[in-house]
Amino acid sequence: MIQRLAIVGVGLLGGSAAKAARAERLAREIVGVGRDAGRLQPALREGVLDRATTDLEAGVREADFVLLAAPVLAIEGLLGRVWRAAPDGAIVTDVGSTKGGIVRAAERLAAARPLAFVGSHPMAGSEQSGYAVARADLFRGATVIVTPTDRTEPRAAKAVTGLWEALGARVRALDPESHDRIVAAISHVPHAVVSALVDAVARREPEALEFAARGFRDTTRIAASDPDVWTEIFVANRAAVLASLGRFRGALDELERLIAAGVPEPLRAALERARAAREGLR
Amino acid sequence: MIQRLAIVGVGLLGGSAAKAARAERLAREIVGVGRDAGRLQPALREGVLDRATTDLEAGVREADFVLLAAPVLAIEGLLGRVWRAAPDGAIVTDVGSTKGGIVRAAERLAAARPLAFVGSHPMAGSEQSGYAVARADLFRGATVIVTPTDRTEPRAAKAVTGLWEALGARVRALDPESHDRIVAAISHVPHAVVSALVDAVARREPEALEFAARGFRDTTRIAASDPDVWTEIFVANRAAVLASLGRFRGALDELERLIAAGVPEPLRAALERARAAREGLR
Repeated sequence: MIQRLAIVGVGLLGGSAAKAARAERLAREIVGVGRDAGRLQPALREGVLDRATTDLEAGVREADFVLLAAPVLAIEGLLGRVWRAAPDGAIVTDVGSTKGGIVRAAERLAAARPLAFVGSHPMAGSEQSGYAVARADLFRGATVIVTPTDRTEPRAAKAVTGLWEALGARVRALDPESHDRIVAAISHVPHAVVSALVDAVARREPEALEFAARGFRDTTRIAASDPDVWTEIFVANRAAVLASLGRFRGALDELERLIAAGVPEPLRAALERARAAREGLR
Repeated sequence: MIQRLAIVGVGLLGGSAAKAARAERLAREIVGVGRDAGRLQPALREGVLDRATTDLEAGVREADFVLLAAPVLAIEGLLGRVWRAAPDGAIVTDVGSTKGGIVRAAERLAAARPLAFVGSHPMAGSEQSGYAVARADLFRGATVIVTPTDRTEPRAAKAVTGLWEALGARVRALDPESHDRIVAAISHVPHAVVSALVDAVARREPEALEFAARGFRDTTRIAASDPDVWTEIFVANRAAVLASLGRFRGALDELERLIAAGVPEPLRAALERARAAREGLR
C-alpha cells in the first residue's frame, strides 16, 4: 500500500487517478498539488484528496509515490524540483503523452541522485479536460504504456505497473522512442490532420459547416481538445510527428492521384485496403 | 397519399425509406426493385414491401413516385430507363451523394419527355450498408438536401420535400453545384483523408494499430464504409473533391510549418481556431 500518494496536477487524468486510488484504497493519504488552490477545492471537499497544496516541494516531500499529471512540457520542468524534494526511495511516474524528453530529463537527474522513475502514458482521456470530468473508471480497460529503459530501477517499473493495473488498466512496455513514434502515428498526426480539416472548412467554406452530419462530427471530435495540451505535445514530439505526417502525405498523395485519374478499380482497391485496416481495429 | 411508391435499391437508405413510409402510411403500395431477388425477400417477408421485382421497368411502370436509392453512378445509368418506363406525371427523386451529374442527366432526359424530377441527398447513413441495418427512424432529425434548378417542376420539389419531411427530415434546398462543393468539404474529403490516415499507419507502422484508442477509432470510423459506394462518389464528384482537398492541404501545410518551427504561441492559436470551429458545430 502507498503511504502518501502525491498527485501533481489534479485535472482529468490526475483527478481520475486520485478518485480511482481512493475508491480502491491504494493509498493511505492522497495529496493534490496544483497551481491554483481554488481548483483543488472540489477534490478536497469530495474527500478524493486528503490535503491540497500549491507548494510542489511541500506536496512531494514525504510522498513515497509521486504521479506527475501536468501537461508534457510542464512535467519536464517539474522533474528537477521533484527530484530535489522527494524523499529517498520515492517512486515517480507521470502521464505525459510523449516520453522521450521526459525520460531523458529523468535519466540526467538520476545521474546526480538516484530516484525510482519510470514514464507512463495512459491511453485514456477525452477532448474535455479538468477535474470536473475526472472519473474513477477512466483507466478501466484502457491501455497504459510504460517506458522503462535499461537504466530504470526494476522496483520502479514494478510499482508503477502495479498502480495502473490496480486502477483497471492493461499495461504495455515500450522503449521511449518506440512509444513516441507509435503515438505520433495513432494520436498526434490524426489530431493535426483533423484540426487542419476543420480549419480548412471553417476558413474557406464556412457555409458548409452547417451541413456537417455525424460522420464529420465524429471524425473531427478530437479537434475540440485543449490547445494548450496539444501545443506542448506537438512541440515535445515534433520529430516523430513530422516523420509520421510525411507517411500520411504519401498515402494521401497516392489516393489523390487515383481520384484524379478517375479509374474506378485501383481507387476501389485503395479504399478497400483502408476499410479492411479500419475493420481490423479491436 | 402516394398510390404506388417504387424504391429502386432496397439497402440502408432505400430500405429505411420503405420502412418509414410504411410506418407513416405514406403510400398505398410499396414496390421494391433490386438486382437480386433473394436480397429483397426480408423486406417482403416483413411486410415493408408489398411487391418485389428485379425488373426495373415493371417496378416503375405504374408508380406515381419513384425513389432511386442505388449508388451514385448506378443512378445516372438507371435514369434513362426510369424515364422511358415511368407513367406521365410520376415524381422521381434519388438519394445520391453527388448531384451535378444526376441532375444534368435528368435535365437532358426532360428535354425529350417531361418527368417531374428533383435530386435529393439525405445526410443520413452509416459506415454499414444493406437492408439488414435499415431502420424506420434513419431520417428522423437528419438533413436532406434537395437540389431543384430553374428547370425543376415546382410540384416535384413540393412532393419530394413533403416526402422527406413526412419521414422526419429537415429539408434544405441548394443548387446542385453548391451541394457538390459542400459535401466534398464535409463528407468526401474527410473520407479520403481518414482513409489515407488508416492506410498510412496500416502499411508503414502496423505495430502502432494495436495501441489505437477511442480517438483514433472515432476519427477513422468512416473509413470502414463500403468501397464500392465511395469509389462512385469520388469518381462522380472528382472536381469538387480535388478542389476541396487542395484547401485541406493548404491548412495542413500551414499547421505542419508551425509544428516544425516549434514556437508554441502561433501553433496554439491555430489549434485554438480549429477547436473553436469544431465546438461551433451543432
